[in-house]
Amino acid sequence: MRVLGVDPGLTRCGVGVVEGVAGRPLTMLGVGVVRTPADAELGLRLVAVEQGIERWLDEHRPEFVAVERVFSQHNVSTVMGTAQASAVAMLCAARRGIPVALHTPSEVKAAVTGSGRADKAQVGAMVTRLLRLDAPPKPADAADALALAICHIWRAPAHNRLQRAVAQHTAKASESSWKGRTA
Amino acid sequence: MRVLGVDPGLTRCGVGVVEGVAGRPLTMLGVGVVRTPADAELGLRLVAVEQGIERWLDEHRPEFVAVERVFSQHNVSTVMGTAQASAVAMLCAARRGIPVALHTPSEVKAAVTGSGRADKAQVGAMVTRLLRLDAPPKPADAADALALAICHIWRAPAHNRLQRAVAQHTAKASESSWKGRTA
Repeated sequence: MRVLGVDPGLTRCGVGVVEGVAGRPLTMLGVGVVRTPADAELGLRLVAVEQGIERWLDEHRPEFVAVERVFSQHNVSTVMGTAQASAVAMLCAARRGIPVALHTPSEVKAAVTGSGRADKAQVGAMVTRLLRLDAPPKPADAADALALAICHIWRAPAHNRLQRAVAQHTAKASESSWKGRTA
Repeated sequence: MRVLGVDPGLTRCGVGVVEGVAGRPLTMLGVGVVRTPADAELGLRLVAVEQGIERWLDEHRPEFVAVERVFSQHNVSTVMGTAQASAVAMLCAARRGIPVALHTPSEVKAAVTGSGRADKAQVGAMVTRLLRLDAPPKPADAADALALAICHIWRAPAHNRLQRAVAQHTAKASESSWKGRTA
């Protein structure tokens, strides 16, 4: 199973691709950050995020995209940008019929460290160990994206297969049924 | 000046196109709602919003897109969907080099009714009068989208011309400069 993890953000959007199955050693296929200039107009920043995500999808052809679930209780000054960047990532995946899974930060931390309250350093350390890297990926957004992908691989593999089949079916169906939905 | 107003939402995304200049009677070119099924997966709903917005852009070729500014203080249960739908609308416009303006609900209400605290009925009544319609557009999201477009036409026309020039210039420049921004 190949998963693109996305830690959404407008200034730094972490992306990481992990391949493997639950119970076997995992492999990192790529990690990075899609950046957009803070002084650019919001619409153009969203276009830049879209271009970045599209490149990662083109290059790695993931079967799943795992995105951090954004809560509106978070830091008010950044939550809107995070929600908007996550929307672009979900849109890019869904357009290709790739199923999108949302995982909360605590689910991700619990999956890779055993504790839903682990700090960034602990997540980075476990990502490094689980993927047999030489050093923790920098910045933290990149490590978080890998942790999201790992979390997704480890959670309910059977459910993932079902979800994938449904998403592909629905994506095909939506092309016809949603045409003309504009009232 | 032709403006597409967008009142963002996942279940109902209001859209309305108004043409005119400040100080002259305005013309409504179209109004409607892009709907997505509440039980569909979030990614697919965003794809449906994208398809809907694209159709409105194709059909009406607006020079500006005016989107309601979303605040994170709003209703927590719907604010994330609203932010995500607004991201898709901004993305669609910016991809085409169409400048995107954000207006707050109070700015819009003040523009069309004279009061930033006007209720939905008052906004609907003024939209009906200003566009010389037979009845207020339904649902309220559609009327709000028209009010957004009117608000945009009436606010700082000189600034709009400048913004348009900058957006087109930046959109062209971004195609080259943002390539390779993935680190």
